[in-house]
Amino acid sequence: MQEQIVEKMMSEVMAQLMQKQEESKAAPAEQPEAKACRMPEFVGTAIGDTMGLVIANVDSALLEAMNIDKRYRSIGIFGGRTGAGPQVMAADDAVKDTNTEIISIELPRDTKGGAGHGSLIIFGADDVSDARRAVEVALNNLEEKFGDVYGNPAGHLEFQYTARASFALNKAFGAPIGKAFGLIVGAPAVIGVMLADVALKAADVEVLGYASPAKGTSYSNEVILQICGDSGAVRQAILTARDVGIPLLESLGGPAPSSATPYI
Amino acid sequence: MQEQIVEKMMSEVMAQLMQKQEESKAAPAEQPEAKACRMPEFVGTAIGDTMGLVIANVDSALLEAMNIDKRYRSIGIFGGRTGAGPQVMAADDAVKDTNTEIISIELPRDTKGGAGHGSLIIFGADDVSDARRAVEVALNNLEEKFGDVYGNPAGHLEFQYTARASFALNKAFGAPIGKAFGLIVGAPAVIGVMLADVALKAADVEVLGYASPAKGTSYSNEVILQICGDSGAVRQAILTARDVGIPLLESLGGPAPSSATPYI
Amino acid sequence: MQEQIVEKMMSEVMAQLMQKQEESKAAPAEQPEAKACRMPEFVGTAIGDTMGLVIANVDSALLEAMNIDKRYRSIGIFGGRTGAGPQVMAADDAVKDTNTEIISIELPRDTKGGAGHGSLIIFGADDVSDARRAVEVALNNLEEKFGDVYGNPAGHLEFQYTARASFALNKAFGAPIGKAFGLIVGAPAVIGVMLADVALKAADVEVLGYASPAKGTSYSNEVILQICGDSGAVRQAILTARDVGIPLLESLGGPAPSSATPYI
Repeated sequence: MQEQIVEKMMSEVMAQLMQKQEESKAAPAEQPEAKACRMPEFVGTAIGDTMGLVIANVDSALLEAMNIDKRYRSIGIFGGRTGAGPQVMAADDAVKDTNTEIISIELPRDTKGGAGHGSLIIFGADDVSDARRAVEVALNNLEEKFGDVYGNPAGHLEFQYTARASFALNKAFGAPIGKAFGLIVGAPAVIGVMLADVALKAADVEVLGYASPAKGTSYSNEVILQICGDSGAVRQAILTARDVGIPLLESLGGPAPSSATPYI
Repeated sequence: MQEQIVEKMMSEVMAQLMQKQEESKAAPAEQPEAKACRMPEFVGTAIGDTMGLVIANVDSALLEAMNIDKRYRSIGIFGGRTGAGPQVMAADDAVKDTNTEIISIELPRDTKGGAGHGSLIIFGADDVSDARRAVEVALNNLEEKFGDVYGNPAGHLEFQYTARASFALNKAFGAPIGKAFGLIVGAPAVIGVMLADVALKAADVEVLGYASPAKGTSYSNEVILQICGDSGAVRQAILTARDVGIPLLESLGGPAPSSATPYI
Repeated sequence: MQEQIVEKMMSEVMAQLMQKQEESKAAPAEQPEAKACRMPEFVGTAIGDTMGLVIANVDSALLEAMNIDKRYRSIGIFGGRTGAGPQVMAADDAVKDTNTEIISIELPRDTKGGAGHGSLIIFGADDVSDARRAVEVALNNLEEKFGDVYGNPAGHLEFQYTARASFALNKAFGAPIGKAFGLIVGAPAVIGVMLADVALKAADVEVLGYASPAKGTSYSNEVILQICGDSGAVRQAILTARDVGIPLLESLGGPAPSSATPYI
């Protein structure tokens, strides 16, 4: 019953919000953002309670505690409460565009009571301006990567596609560098199993990985399929899964709109 | 403080809901349910954001990725955001009644911000009609299995009992096939420890398993006791734990009603 | 988007609560608390949906199932939905003041949809009065330990400090007995990485441990730094991290007040 209550709360409160929002459009500038912005380490924030920071000279004891072999002088820090795939995709763009490396990608069980992951991604660089640039690119590109994340109170679906995977996707999902890569996520996991089957039947793609609640996830309620292959085939597999996934998720929790603007 | 705020939100919003519900009883039929229903793979939905699906001819690459040895032609998929015990119990009824096997049971850390698990259960069958039948039985029996799930904003209690365990309970909890089995869950875990002690003192039962946040759960805030023995003794142990658990949970979070209709 | 919705819900509902609370100050005494209080095992409840219980003669089958070597006659049980650091700190006070030992400390992934942990701490004693006293001390001291927990809908920060660590801090974090110890937690984890760097640069302290979403936590969205050293240095490191952490968290989720009264 608990989830039905939460669902009802959600829609009830949302209805009231509509009204309120009309009334109070012009909120005053926030003080804390301003205060944080004055820190040289602060880069910015984005969708999914995501934040980007940069450290020019990382403390050597911290590097040791983090168990990082290579001694980077500067690191970029990028991650949020909601979303792993979108942040990894945005970080992938960032390593393509900058002189940085991916040090680590960790996926907490989060999404603030949702069914999925949050994220913590660390970039390494010899120069702080490179690290900062990587975090800026990731922050700027993040909203786009939420374009094919669809959600409602019952769960979420996520689809990611790139014609040319780079180091972040390689680190997180074993994607071959420079090849087309696709990610298909269904939550609750029951939907994800079906999307995996649909995707693999839709086109001639190769399975890179299959993660489920007990294996490969941080106990999230997701099934995650990672695929590679010919770019057209990968895209076809994803689009077919999306067509099947949305009505399934909507049958469980009502309308499941995109979190931003679909890009695939 | 956060949980107190959530608690207050809950009760506040609930009060308003009562009003609203009076007004709008006759909601129009939902489109997405209708659309999903037309898919041959869709079997149905149930309490706990639970869904049931069936795949007639599973893709062989998917079977391989799922690491399933035996090559089933058809699979049934059954699971939800909220609840593991109820879904396992319902699946246990399903394997008793149908020509299917339990391929896997996985327990995500979920319940939508609650203290417990969600579920992903996969049935294997040679014939799609068997797989579908298993999922139907599980969906139909699920609400009953939520009968002895009691919850409030502070946590939940779960009690399950069967006089004759089958393959799902064996797979998930090591229950001896054909013997009486009981499950006692307390969340937060502090309550579960006490219920385990009370149950074991109440009757001559055998401990099959004891799961706690760091061992045997997916880091849920639960202690889960699994018992077997004489059916009368198992039932007695459960009923005693229930009598102790409800006032304890209520002392923390207010009234803790059954999620459906108590069956034990 | 989901988290923005939750955030808005939060503030909207909170506003309405203000009104309601004015109206209904004098709630009637709760029945369930009274009923639970009559159990001899019930010790009390506290902030964070925390409960304290005591078992005079633990069932031997339970001790075995819990995998406890030493045969304590009595146990104290202490833990909650929200908070691990505060409960461990309060338990640390309790073992200092009583003739008990820490049997186990387990950290579920919880905080009711928040980014952190809950807790389950078990005290062992030969005499039930000792176990009860330990739980009482822990319950009484808990609110103080929430003093430097700061939160908003986007995450939380936690700071703990003691001039003299005891057995609970040793068990949970490897703190040297009798030495100054500090704990610095940032959630989402991205903030925690930065706080760790700031703290280590601020004073000459030693790193005891560094936990992140994939290592050392229960997949929480936190980075947790554990430090020891000269008491002045430990305190200085913590205070510097706090000064940096609060504006960062506030830039993500608005005002992040203390959960109680700051004590460091």
